Amino acid sequence: MSANNETTFNPGKGEGQSVGVAILGLGTVGTQVLRLLGEKAEDFERRIGGPIEVKGVAVSDKTKPRPGIDPELITDDAYSLVERDDVDLVVEVIGGIDYPRRVVLAALRAGKSVVTANKALVAAHGAELSDAADSSGADLFFEAAVAAAIPIVGPLRRSLAGDTVNKVVGIVNGTTNFILDAMDSTGADYGEMLAEATRLGYAEADPTADVEGHDAASKAAILSSLAFHTRVTADDVHCEGISSITAEDIAAAQAADCTIKLLATCERVTDESGKEGVSARVYPALIPRRHPLATVRESFNAVFIEAEAAGSLMLYGNGAGGNPTASAVLGDVVAAARNIVHGGRAPGDSTYANLPILDFGDVRTRYHIDLHVDDRLGVLADIAQTFADHHISLRTVRQEGANPGARLVIITHSAKESELAATVDALSKLDAILEVNSVIRIEGMDV
Amino acid sequence: MSANNETTFNPGKGEGQSVGVAILGLGTVGTQVLRLLGEKAEDFERRIGGPIEVKGVAVSDKTKPRPGIDPELITDDAYSLVERDDVDLVVEVIGGIDYPRRVVLAALRAGKSVVTANKALVAAHGAELSDAADSSGADLFFEAAVAAAIPIVGPLRRSLAGDTVNKVVGIVNGTTNFILDAMDSTGADYGEMLAEATRLGYAEADPTADVEGHDAASKAAILSSLAFHTRVTADDVHCEGISSITAEDIAAAQAADCTIKLLATCERVTDESGKEGVSARVYPALIPRRHPLATVRESFNAVFIEAEAAGSLMLYGNGAGGNPTASAVLGDVVAAARNIVHGGRAPGDSTYANLPILDFGDVRTRYHIDLHVDDRLGVLADIAQTFADHHISLRTVRQEGANPGARLVIITHSAKESELAATVDALSKLDAILEVNSVIRIEGMDV
Repeated sequence: MSANNETTFNPGKGEGQSVGVAILGLGTVGTQVLRLLGEKAEDFERRIGGPIEVKGVAVSDKTKPRPGIDPELITDDAYSLVERDDVDLVVEVIGGIDYPRRVVLAALRAGKSVVTANKALVAAHGAELSDAADSSGADLFFEAAVAAAIPIVGPLRRSLAGDTVNKVVGIVNGTTNFILDAMDSTGADYGEMLAEATRLGYAEADPTADVEGHDAASKAAILSSLAFHTRVTADDVHCEGISSITAEDIAAAQAADCTIKLLATCERVTDESGKEGVSARVYPALIPRRHPLATVRESFNAVFIEAEAAGSLMLYGNGAGGNPTASAVLGDVVAAARNIVHGGRAPGDSTYANLPILDFGDVRTRYHIDLHVDDRLGVLADIAQTFADHHISLRTVRQEGANPGARLVIITHSAKESELAATVDALSKLDAILEVNSVIRIEGMDV
Repeated sequence: MSANNETTFNPGKGEGQSVGVAILGLGTVGTQVLRLLGEKAEDFERRIGGPIEVKGVAVSDKTKPRPGIDPELITDDAYSLVERDDVDLVVEVIGGIDYPRRVVLAALRAGKSVVTANKALVAAHGAELSDAADSSGADLFFEAAVAAAIPIVGPLRRSLAGDTVNKVVGIVNGTTNFILDAMDSTGADYGEMLAEATRLGYAEADPTADVEGHDAASKAAILSSLAFHTRVTADDVHCEGISSITAEDIAAAQAADCTIKLLATCERVTDESGKEGVSARVYPALIPRRHPLATVRESFNAVFIEAEAAGSLMLYGNGAGGNPTASAVLGDVVAAARNIVHGGRAPGDSTYANLPILDFGDVRTRYHIDLHVDDRLGVLADIAQTFADHHISLRTVRQEGANPGARLVIITHSAKESELAATVDALSKLDAILEVNSVIRIEGMDV
């Protein structure tokens, strides 16, 4: 835990003093941040207690024309910019990991507060950045790193600081939610809807980070760390993407009155010996249509939180885009700038719980299993016995005609990943099983 | 605007020092706050940087038995308690206005930080309390005053501090949402569902403050003040309750693919001369079923926010009850206690915008008008002309048989309250109009 103790104490520059800001990166977000700081300068000054003065903007290519931006502000030397005496606050909206890590560390070590929208950086190197901020007494804020404009870092750090959060389930990637929602509405294939998402600008030319779940995994790491007062990095997050989801899977989900969403699930768990741990995982899962997360359409994001005293909460909105991300960045800029003017510092990372990461094989959830089987007497008995052998009990079994054979759709009660994997392995060896069509997890059936 | 300047600067008691807490009120919320402070003491200490020590609990009746609570803590002298040297932080969960106002002012003037769940107090006397906090450098927090555990005060004060909020529409009263949702699901009458709500504990014995909208009006005042950086009191809020809503109104809403909700609507408006103002109003209104607020069922609450850069956000959860309210109170307790230990102070009220309150007659919205008319040639022409005379254009007109006569259901485009009132007055004087069954406003049709 951080200490705002006397040695790092910031008394503030004083009411009316200006706050010098350096912006690193001038892509979609950086451009909107710069525009809004100019257009709303008077509001910022009134809310902060002193004016914001943009001292410089670091870019990779200085020669590119940037209409409407004072060329004197543009530099390609981010290191010199963040260490300038007249810079108090650094906004990092570059993206990537290694280069922004080095520049942000340089800024924090020089005592400059940092606002970043970089989920990959925070998820990979949060501890190192947090330590640097604690040492110099600077603020480090990253509301924009999870679900852009949706207030989620603030509520977890601040509003829920007096409660015990047990579970966080988020739809935190707009690209994959757009694709899955379009598949759900139209019945079309994954490939077709990925192409549509690309055409409409919801997916990037290389969609890997989104569709394979890496982007959501970074956010799951950040959410778990905040929710459970512990340290979780992106490497700790089990991650599966949506590229294997078929139109048939979506239809099967609909038949079970569910929809499929890419969920980032962060859970406080207690093992058989009573020891607490944390599980963070990203995978496509069925959720019941009546669950609030099922109503999250198109590219919207939402984070569902279960806390002991608060009960269920959901925070919903635009999880990406230049303006929504700029909104979150600028909320952090106001908070950091207020501290620069008036003194004090936000609390640092709270990671006292030091929870171990649960092995993925020990995670418990429910499963939707779609099997293509021989249509003959005794098949169901064999299959049921295989589940029983692995201590998995079944919630529903639905049989449909297929040609040849039959289709069995099974929903299990809560079971361990390792037991489920062993069951599927054993099932696939049964003569009567023609094919295991799909195995998809189920979340939110208890809400 | 407040100033955390050098003269009121709080350097903090220092890491490891205890924070003395006084609790005022031991009803449902106070009891849960006290329980959780005990049960989670270790978490609170780790999150704050020093232990919480409850120094006293003020109640009105000292003689009442309170099992499990140290009798030494109980006092009926709240004034002496809040001024004790060993009390740093006061939690006010009494309710009412005059008495808690005096005690809270005494606490703030003595430099004690205050956390209150009292919406009526904050809505009526926010300016006076805020000034007292600014003068002594104490913190004043009230997350629990609006929608209990749903983080909404924090997001408006902090996360959206870099954005421009244009509209806030909230379902902020659980009792009325339970009644309207039950009417919507069952087709039953208002009276029947109010009785059901009372039986289930969702409505108090005297439900006036809830069903007549006064509770929601206090919250609308607080939301407007925070969202628009201005000062709005409960008296500035136009307020209508739900007791006149009939099963027929609900059925008519359903026919228009809408539901009826009691909405607290807070809006930044610009009049014809370009002057900005604020409108805060509470009334039952139709909202389209596809609007996120239409999915808020039972006694849940939600606040929908439209901001320039963030776009649309919705914050959803439990808006009442002992535990959810205690969650919000305790989040504020942690924040205030951190400042007491580590120094610094949260920003005070930001009311620089000083927006005038728009006259209710000048508010623009859409209307759903249900008329019982003579079924003869020329009636529709007369009615349409009456709307045209008052510059109100119609969006849809739906005619149904009635016996005798006909029923006309009209949805208007956006129009001024004063013009609509004059239109309804003129309509009621037309010979062809047998009765104006209902006039209900419509919100959220543009989302």
